[in-house]
Amino acid sequence: MDGCLITLEGPEGGGKSTQIALLRDFLERAGVPCTVVREPGGTAIGDRVREILLDPRAADMTVRTEILLYAASRAQLVEQVILPALCRGEVVLCDRFVDSSLAYQGFGAPWDREEIRLVNRVATGGLRPHRTYLLDVPVEESIRRLQSRGRGIDRIERKGKKFHERVRQGFLRLAQAEPDRFLVVDASRPADEVFHLLRRDLEKLIPISREGEA
Amino acid sequence: MDGCLITLEGPEGGGKSTQIALLRDFLERAGVPCTVVREPGGTAIGDRVREILLDPRAADMTVRTEILLYAASRAQLVEQVILPALCRGEVVLCDRFVDSSLAYQGFGAPWDREEIRLVNRVATGGLRPHRTYLLDVPVEESIRRLQSRGRGIDRIERKGKKFHERVRQGFLRLAQAEPDRFLVVDASRPADEVFHLLRRDLEKLIPISREGEA
Repeated sequence: MDGCLITLEGPEGGGKSTQIALLRDFLERAGVPCTVVREPGGTAIGDRVREILLDPRAADMTVRTEILLYAASRAQLVEQVILPALCRGEVVLCDRFVDSSLAYQGFGAPWDREEIRLVNRVATGGLRPHRTYLLDVPVEESIRRLQSRGRGIDRIERKGKKFHERVRQGFLRLAQAEPDRFLVVDASRPADEVFHLLRRDLEKLIPISREGEA
Repeated sequence: MDGCLITLEGPEGGGKSTQIALLRDFLERAGVPCTVVREPGGTAIGDRVREILLDPRAADMTVRTEILLYAASRAQLVEQVILPALCRGEVVLCDRFVDSSLAYQGFGAPWDREEIRLVNRVATGGLRPHRTYLLDVPVEESIRRLQSRGRGIDRIERKGKKFHERVRQGFLRLAQAEPDRFLVVDASRPADEVFHLLRRDLEKLIPISREGEA
């Protein structure tokens, strides 16, 4: 397995999708094969699990159920998409991974993080990201950005401000605990500045030939 | 928690539904409050997970995903239905529980049973059945009964004869390992004979007044 698994983590509204699109463009222009996935979902089965997870009508979902459903979606994604892409030597850009379960259910809910780690070890077979970009953004800013999107608010986004504050602090604590894997970026900065930081990091991580660039 | 959790286990076609209906009637006539549930499903969220699990189109589901989805459905059922019923002092009759995950995924697939136990400890919070009735039936008989039902065959039932033989032997080994919890019944016998054995056992387990009976 020669590929490289890069995960993007952080609160909603931190610009993960934007940065993933920019990173993908950059890699493609440089001729580096890459696969982009998002969680929950990313497979036919995972997308059906995603529908349940984000459905505002499923307000009575227990935390145990939530942990296990995220893990189920992740298990399918790892085996069906991520591992094959890594085996082909590709860069995999993943929008959320195990750290999101630890931040949202472990710190946000809050639930026993050892149980979450155990369940996710079964889900992923122990696969760990080579690099994790934490796009950190204050909760007020995250809420403001979500509201300006004008789409409906899902089951997780509906949880209160205190919940999202715990989630944010959780992400930061996870990053502190593994400084070699995480790069924390202040995502309240303009998107192009954030991308510049990620791109500089990526160039150190992956051998990228400069000639393919625009 | 004063209630009593009784699970019925065994291959498809062993007559679990029939016996649960008979046991429920018997308990209700005796004035014993009881709740009947089935797995996977039994809650609004669990029923949506059940649809994914049994969908023949989901043939590419990985074993890890399967284990986690069954556990997710179970977690919701335990917290939303089983625990409240046990707290009300009821008898809960449950059509399949953790032993089915061990038999189908652990022995059938076959997958690491310790991982399955770990995941299910998270799902159930460690809740264990007080009594488990294993309705044992030879694989040929089980297949014959399924075919005579005339309904479609689901994703699990589609697996081959060798798979179902491992599942049956798995159930028997689980019963051997916990003789105090399991009662193994030869379910190829007529339904009324099977019921007679279960009823006799239930009467020893639960204080049942005789006057309520027909």
